[in-house]
This record gives sequence, C-alpha cells and structure tokens, in this order.
Amino acid sequence: MPILSNKGRNLPESPIRKLSAFATKAKTEGVHVFHLNIGQPDIDSPKDSIDVVRNNNLKLLPYESSEGSLSFRKLLCTYYKRNKIEVLPEDIIVTTGASEALAFTLNCICDAGDEIIIPEPFYANYNGFAAASSVKVIPIVSLFDEQFCLPSISTIEKKITTRTKAILICNPSNPTGYLYSQEEIKLLGDLALKHNIFLIVDEVYREFIHSEVDKHFSVLQYEKLKDHAIMIDSVSKRYSLCGARVGFMVSKNKNLISTALKFAHLRLSPATLALMASEAAINSDPEYLIHVKNEYSKRKKTLIQALEKIDGVRVSNPKGAFYCIVELPVEDAEEFSKWMLTDFTYQNETVMFAPAAGFYSTPGYGKKQIRMGFVLNQKDLLRCAKILEKALKAYSN
Amino acid sequence: MPILSNKGRNLPESPIRKLSAFATKAKTEGVHVFHLNIGQPDIDSPKDSIDVVRNNNLKLLPYESSEGSLSFRKLLCTYYKRNKIEVLPEDIIVTTGASEALAFTLNCICDAGDEIIIPEPFYANYNGFAAASSVKVIPIVSLFDEQFCLPSISTIEKKITTRTKAILICNPSNPTGYLYSQEEIKLLGDLALKHNIFLIVDEVYREFIHSEVDKHFSVLQYEKLKDHAIMIDSVSKRYSLCGARVGFMVSKNKNLISTALKFAHLRLSPATLALMASEAAINSDPEYLIHVKNEYSKRKKTLIQALEKIDGVRVSNPKGAFYCIVELPVEDAEEFSKWMLTDFTYQNETVMFAPAAGFYSTPGYGKKQIRMGFVLNQKDLLRCAKILEKALKAYSN
Repeated sequence: MPILSNKGRNLPESPIRKLSAFATKAKTEGVHVFHLNIGQPDIDSPKDSIDVVRNNNLKLLPYESSEGSLSFRKLLCTYYKRNKIEVLPEDIIVTTGASEALAFTLNCICDAGDEIIIPEPFYANYNGFAAASSVKVIPIVSLFDEQFCLPSISTIEKKITTRTKAILICNPSNPTGYLYSQEEIKLLGDLALKHNIFLIVDEVYREFIHSEVDKHFSVLQYEKLKDHAIMIDSVSKRYSLCGARVGFMVSKNKNLISTALKFAHLRLSPATLALMASEAAINSDPEYLIHVKNEYSKRKKTLIQALEKIDGVRVSNPKGAFYCIVELPVEDAEEFSKWMLTDFTYQNETVMFAPAAGFYSTPGYGKKQIRMGFVLNQKDLLRCAKILEKALKAYSN
Repeated sequence: MPILSNKGRNLPESPIRKLSAFATKAKTEGVHVFHLNIGQPDIDSPKDSIDVVRNNNLKLLPYESSEGSLSFRKLLCTYYKRNKIEVLPEDIIVTTGASEALAFTLNCICDAGDEIIIPEPFYANYNGFAAASSVKVIPIVSLFDEQFCLPSISTIEKKITTRTKAILICNPSNPTGYLYSQEEIKLLGDLALKHNIFLIVDEVYREFIHSEVDKHFSVLQYEKLKDHAIMIDSVSKRYSLCGARVGFMVSKNKNLISTALKFAHLRLSPATLALMASEAAINSDPEYLIHVKNEYSKRKKTLIQALEKIDGVRVSNPKGAFYCIVELPVEDAEEFSKWMLTDFTYQNETVMFAPAAGFYSTPGYGKKQIRMGFVLNQKDLLRCAKILEKALKAYSN
C-alpha cells in the first residue's frame, strides 16, 4: 500500500459535514432531520438568475474566460460601488466559489511552512485550505464571553514572525457573527502595513448586518492598504446560489492579481452556466438583497430568543452573517450532536448541528459549543429550539 | 509592497493561454482568429444535457453532495462497465473538472518537496498543479522522432528516488496523441508496484482513438494495481462540456478516496447545474460518442495530410486525443506564433497555436514545435493549414 501525504492524513475532517453519515442514516430510518449545520439558505434566488439559465440557447458548454468576462467584472464594480467600494475590473478575478479565491490567495502569498494568523473560532475550511498549501495557521483565541471581539492588537502582533504572510478574518464572521468595526479594520490594516504583510478579509456575508446602526466597513475601503488588502467574496449566500460555485478575489495589488491569474489559467475557467446565473443575480433589483437581509434578521431574533429560554443554554448575539455559537450544558457537544442523530428523536424529528470545536485550531476550545445557522424559516427554527430543549432534557437523564 | 510566494512568482504562464492578449488585440482590430491553441470542441453536446438545464425547476442553487450524488456515481459505473472498467460508486469522487481531480490526487499523495515523474511533453497544467502543491516534476523526454513513445522502463526507474510518489501519464496523450499500449501500462504498473508508488493516468481522451485496430487500456483494467492506480477523468472533451467543469477521480484505494473526500468537503461541492448537464450527457445514447470519435478521426486525417504538404513542416501522427505536435521550420515557434497574431494576416485571418516549449519542463526542448488541436471542422482546419503555409513563407522573408 503506497503511503499518503502527511497533509492528507492530518487534514481535519470538516465539522460541518463530518456527522453527515449519521444524518443520512437517520433519514433512511424515516426521521426528519433539520439541517442547521450548514449554511445552505432556503430563500429563493433572484428569479432572473434561474430564468437566464432556463432560456439559454447554448449548443455546448464552452470554457469561459479564466478571470471572468469583462462584462461580468464591470457589473461587479457597479455592485461594489453601491457598497462604497471603488474597484476596477482588472482588480477582480472570478473564482470557483470563495473557496477557490482563498486557495489562490494562499498559493500566491505563501510557500510551504509560511504562517497565517487567524482569530478563532474561524470558518473551519480555512484550516483545510491552509493544510492543502502546507501553510501553518496561527490561531488567536477570541472569547464567547466577549462576544468573540477582536483580541488586542498587541496579542496579535506578538504572533507575527518572519514566516507570517497575512492576517485573515471573516467580516462579519462565520461562525461567530462578530462584525469588525471600521476602527478594528484600520488597526489590523496598520498592523499589516507595519509588518508588510497582507490583510485578507472574507466578506461573503457583507450584506447581512442585523442592526440599522451597524455598518459594514470593507477592507478595500481603507485607502492606505492599496497593496496589502485582499477581499474574498462570493454570490453563494447573498443570492442563495451556493451551488453556482462562483466567488471573487479582489485586490488593488497588481502583482498579486497577475500571479493569481496564472493559477486561474491553470484550472481554465469557472462553470459557464453558473456564471450566467450569477451575472443575472448581481444585475437584479437591489431590493432583493434588502428583503433577504430583513428575513435573516427576523430569523436571528426568533432563534436567539427561543434559545435563551432553554435551561443551561448560552448563545452569542451575532451582529452579522447567519450563524450563532451556542454553548450547551453538556461535556462534549460533538458527542451530543451525534447522539441527537443516532439515538434521539422528538415526534420523529431531530436537528443536525456543526460541533464548534472544529472551528478552533487550539485543542480543547469550543468543546461545549455548537454552531447553528439560521437558514430555515422562523417556524422551523422554533421547532428546532424545541427539539434541542427536549434533547438536552433526555440527554441529562 | 508585501512579497509574494516563490511558487506563485515561479509558476510558469500557461502556454495555452499566454498569447491570449495578442489574439484579443487582433480581434479588436477586426482580424478573424482561428483558435487551434485550446482544446475547445465545436461539436454540439448531447441534446439532453442542455435540455435538462433548460427544463430545470429549481428555485435556488443548493450545494450538492461533495463527492457527487450516488445516482450520478452509479451512472458513471455503468459508463465505465461499457468500457470494461469495473468500479463501484464508492471508488469515485466527482470533481470540478479533471483539474481538481489532479489537484486532489497531488494533495493526497505528496507533501512539499515530493516528486512526480512525467514523460514530457505533457499537458502544461500538470506543471502548474504540481507547483501549487510544492511538488517537483521530474520529466523524462519522449521524442518527436519516435512518435513520443514511452521512454524505456530503465530510464524511468533511474529517476525514482525516496521522494518519488507517482508516475503520471495522459493516455491517449495531450499534447502528443500517443496511445500507451496495454503492455506499456502493465510495465508502468509493475514499476509502480515494485517501488510502492502510484500510477496516475489521465484518461479524459479515452474515447478518441483514431484506428479500429488500437484499443484503449485503462489503468483500472490492470487488476494487480488495485491500491496503486488512480484514474483522472472528465466530461469536458467527451461531451463538449468544457464549461461544466465536471471531472472524476477514480481509485480502488479506499484510504486514498477517503482522504480525497476530506479535500472534497473543503470546497463543498461541484456546480449544481453542471452536474445536471453532465449526468444527462453520461446517460445519453452511446451512439453520440461514436459519432464524435468519427468526426475527430476525419479531422485528424484532413489536418495531418494538409500539414504534411507544407514545406519544412513535420507533424506527429497522433493515435488518439485531438492534438498533434507540429515541428516548424523556424528557430522559435513561440515568437512565430506571437508574430502570427501581431504582424500577420492572410485575407484578414490568422491562427492561434500553443507553443510546445511550455509542454516540456526541460529547458530548450520543443522550441521549434507547436501544439495544434483539431477542434474545428475540416473546412476550417484546411483554411488554418493554408494560413500557416502563407505565414511561414512571409516569416522566412
């Protein structure tokens, strides 16, 4: 038997999908499983985005431009301008999801053994993409009791070494919902400038801010950062187009973009039909996004209120995105989540969560926590809270 | 300005797309450019594959299963069985193009600094994917004058070190059209077994064999190789679905597949609409593939005959795939190809080729060669040969 790579063998299993086999088994046994483990929205995509695919008159599916067509990138510039972000088409590479935008970024800036600093808990797949590029993730713990706010700049600065290539954050954050303030982005930006490293910001949840007072501040709005800022973006959550696999890598650093373009040429192009759907979505009425944002904000309120009523449950108050971290009165939230799929039902229903330990890279953290996505309608979310309450009672007996 | 990675800076530009900017410029000046540089077929996809997308009744685009749905993988097993390849659904991971299948493979078997042996000239992007994983490509030259046949096993064996993880071939080969015999596959397989390394075979051109006598022998047909064989595959060329970005990684090595599945979870899933189109294509009448194969065989004959009539031009005789390597009576085929886009037209038309030097990793090789794809109809191919003839005459003056 030939030996596999260390990076392959050591790659952590995704906490979002690792319990999937148990959910599948429960379903084959006739149990209804609510999926709060994954960020799969249930809101309809803009009608135009599906219609354009239905009305296509292609005879075959050709490759597209590796970086995305000029018309697509121009349209994106208009979208960004509406969000007070000034970029040019040549600052953008259209990618196969935000996943690929992150992979391109890591490949462009890191060699094997280089380091990236990330506040944890963080989107679990950052770990995986780093591992795939043999890049070392240097975590900095942010705390549940502080609503996962940014650790102090001096704590972060202490972690910077000669191998550090970037600081990576998700704003607003998956999985915590934390929204970084303009001041925090500028502090991080100044730190990146001081040490001549990149500040990478995953902004795929930009539109989903749950208070009228809070405003999203993009890393590309901080003008001093011209060469040091990289924004990761995607149509997946914004337009319920997760299955399009269309994202963006955006930066004003011309060297970076021309290097990323070589990686883009390698994989030829994003998917043709998905690009059609995404272009139509971006071109759709901006009212669509307001409607979606309001829907998630309502769901958030409903879910958080219901969770707060459950004995022993503590829940973070996400300012953005559509996830919250929930601390449960159990020793091991992963064991509990698995048990909910294998040994528990309430009126023949159960819920699948993502155990939060997988969103930390420091061992031992997040053991009592789960991540819940408020990706279902309010009625279903209330039902999920009820099932969780019943499960916790049964589990403690 | 922060420093980019060595791997990013050193990544070679794709020879297939590196002259694209010159082609674009020629087109904006009103010149018609025939594209023989890229493997973009012009044959219609199976009608069902486009119709299924037109008739979709989705409301949004959800993530798909990371490894491809069971029904899709079962269908693939039926297709493979027709090709005398016995595999199970759990031996298959559906990927975002053959590109991703190769990236997963390299990530699963190689750490930074590990080595892969590849006969050159080889599909240029192998270089890029290796670079992205910090893997070293060890080339073994195969010769134009020997129709690019497999170098001797002893030559290959001499290159095997403790860092060697695999031998990689493309069968039939892009860019040479060489078809490896059953005997050669078994010799390579035995070598892989002897040194306990993998034999990776890219079989995306499996269907396109230009003689009734020759038969394709898949690496998965060699039963001794169970744990050592990895097949890379794709719907792109077979069904003119390049823009679907749907491919496959296939192996009976269970450890390998479960490791690859972790990388698959990372990027969530292939594109939803593309999977629909691909499933319908694979399920379409097998007569479709016979028709496509015959069309490419006719084109091959037409193109080769026309090229052989041009003074000073030598052309390989591809037994499979839809490319040939052409040796030109010029010092530097890349300079010549560029000149054809920037300084030459014949009746306001010109042709874009892929300079072959980019398909070698040993410097200096292939300098007089280009790769031509016979992806256009016979009339256009004859026209391209005529334009090449005129261009060579003009260039020599």
